[in-house]
Amino acid sequence: MEDSILFWPCRLDKDVLYVLDETAIPEKVQYIPVGNTNEAVSVIKEMKTRAFGQFLVILSIFLVEIERGKNFSDRDLYVKIGQIAEALNKSRPTFPFAEVTSIVVNWAKVALESHQDLKTFVVKNINSYLQGVRYSRLDRVKRISEVIKDGDSVLTHCNVSGELAMAAGMCLAQNKKVKFFATETRPYFQGAKLTAWELGQVGADVTLIADNAVGNVMANKMVNKVIVGSDRNCANGDFANKIGTYQIAVLSKHFNIPFYVLTQPSSKVASAADIPVEIRPEEELLRYEGKKAIKGYVRGFYPGFDVVPHELVTGGAIALEMGRK
Amino acid sequence: MEDSILFWPCRLDKDVLYVLDETAIPEKVQYIPVGNTNEAVSVIKEMKTRAFGQFLVILSIFLVEIERGKNFSDRDLYVKIGQIAEALNKSRPTFPFAEVTSIVVNWAKVALESHQDLKTFVVKNINSYLQGVRYSRLDRVKRISEVIKDGDSVLTHCNVSGELAMAAGMCLAQNKKVKFFATETRPYFQGAKLTAWELGQVGADVTLIADNAVGNVMANKMVNKVIVGSDRNCANGDFANKIGTYQIAVLSKHFNIPFYVLTQPSSKVASAADIPVEIRPEEELLRYEGKKAIKGYVRGFYPGFDVVPHELVTGGAIALEMGRK
Repeated sequence: MEDSILFWPCRLDKDVLYVLDETAIPEKVQYIPVGNTNEAVSVIKEMKTRAFGQFLVILSIFLVEIERGKNFSDRDLYVKIGQIAEALNKSRPTFPFAEVTSIVVNWAKVALESHQDLKTFVVKNINSYLQGVRYSRLDRVKRISEVIKDGDSVLTHCNVSGELAMAAGMCLAQNKKVKFFATETRPYFQGAKLTAWELGQVGADVTLIADNAVGNVMANKMVNKVIVGSDRNCANGDFANKIGTYQIAVLSKHFNIPFYVLTQPSSKVASAADIPVEIRPEEELLRYEGKKAIKGYVRGFYPGFDVVPHELVTGGAIALEMGRK
Repeated sequence: MEDSILFWPCRLDKDVLYVLDETAIPEKVQYIPVGNTNEAVSVIKEMKTRAFGQFLVILSIFLVEIERGKNFSDRDLYVKIGQIAEALNKSRPTFPFAEVTSIVVNWAKVALESHQDLKTFVVKNINSYLQGVRYSRLDRVKRISEVIKDGDSVLTHCNVSGELAMAAGMCLAQNKKVKFFATETRPYFQGAKLTAWELGQVGADVTLIADNAVGNVMANKMVNKVIVGSDRNCANGDFANKIGTYQIAVLSKHFNIPFYVLTQPSSKVASAADIPVEIRPEEELLRYEGKKAIKGYVRGFYPGFDVVPHELVTGGAIALEMGRK
């Protein structure tokens, strides 16, 4: 199975990380060179990368900084790793940055306390962890493809970083006839620019709809399954995902359409109320490709995420299971 | 009370009708000269005018054509009126064109059968009917303002042709503190370009949200009333309105928020199933201001309207009551 470009949107070349500029897709496939933590925080804040891309940038920037600080003492490297973690944790509120960075900080601590070479130990652990994540995601792609049956019509929202497109490719290879509906996902149009494009690339049958047409296609029985991703998961099954996910979940319930969510293991927060929701700048709603789209004085409100109660996950969670191949 | 410019978006000057180009708002307030039925059909098909504007164009174009055909015999004028009606009826499917044009055709028939001067009779009837509609709408503006209470936060969708903005103005004059949320209303952005602008013009407190943020603001208790318009009404209370209305109605029910709809008297269709829904060209979804927004081969599906079952009208209908002043 070939990777969708969005499945692994970063590559590391010596001490420079090349991060796929997801805002340039589908016009251009271009990578932004990221050489230090500040630049990593920038690509995250400006949403050049998002979702799984954020996760990759977090882990990979430690590799970059460790390479750059290879002459540091273990003690200094440990301090530096803590500083990197802190900077990343502050970049955006909803994604669980601290949960990811704390893994690396912990490895550094273990190395220091057990008098192992910190650089070697941490780099080896990050690389094998990333490899494990890769296997687990490939395994989940297979499980997504099993959830999708011949004749299904699947609605998705925003973008699940390659997994759905690759599952669609598997369905095609198995001669399943499947239709996909992708929502535009205003204001960044991830559904239009990433998901519809990505599904089209593998040859899937995909139709774009406006975010306000979900109720219509459901009422007209044009959709029989919903699959979305998640940016953060709670112990009770509540989850955060791109703005618009909550209302799609409510509509799915109203129209008796099973609603599935791709989840990552996480138990740091108990329920929805504990997830801080990022409010993005109103300009991102009021502008279109850099140009002011709405004239006159109008305020905009752009919550970046929805936090969805687990009761609405009627299809089930398709969890990332670490350790599975 | 001053009219919002969208409240009466046409004016007749001798034999030319000037139709407000609603697609140019808020950048420019410009009127398109419409001198015959073909041009009237064009402004309707291209959605230069919509909703109440369509209704005005239908009735007014008869006045234009009757003026142009003033030397016709009554019999020829009667035939011409039938042809105009037919051309208008075919322009777009969801709005009840035939219900409106049949009123005029009927007046022409009455004039012919009762040997009255057809031109004088029809023109007089159209003008007094329009005057009656104007009074009834002003009366409804007052009733909308009564539905809105001090402290309310009202969500609306698409644009209700001036009435909500004028009601907001009345609320302001009565010192009611009211907030409004307007949805963008993709793909034409009527909510962003017309409603938010129009509410801003009267000094109302208005915030724009993406169509996918309705569930979010409802879940966060930022909205306690929903008021939308309707393009077509059924005898049983079902109604057609801009795409997106159905899902807002479902969400309102889920979150226990009263949902109100502005209706026009209509009994020609029994229920939702009898309303044909216009599917607009996919290019309107895939382009932004004339430029292709989505690269690559992606299909789009753009139903222009939702047909909403009456069970979801939990607040009630705010009907246009002809004859009320």
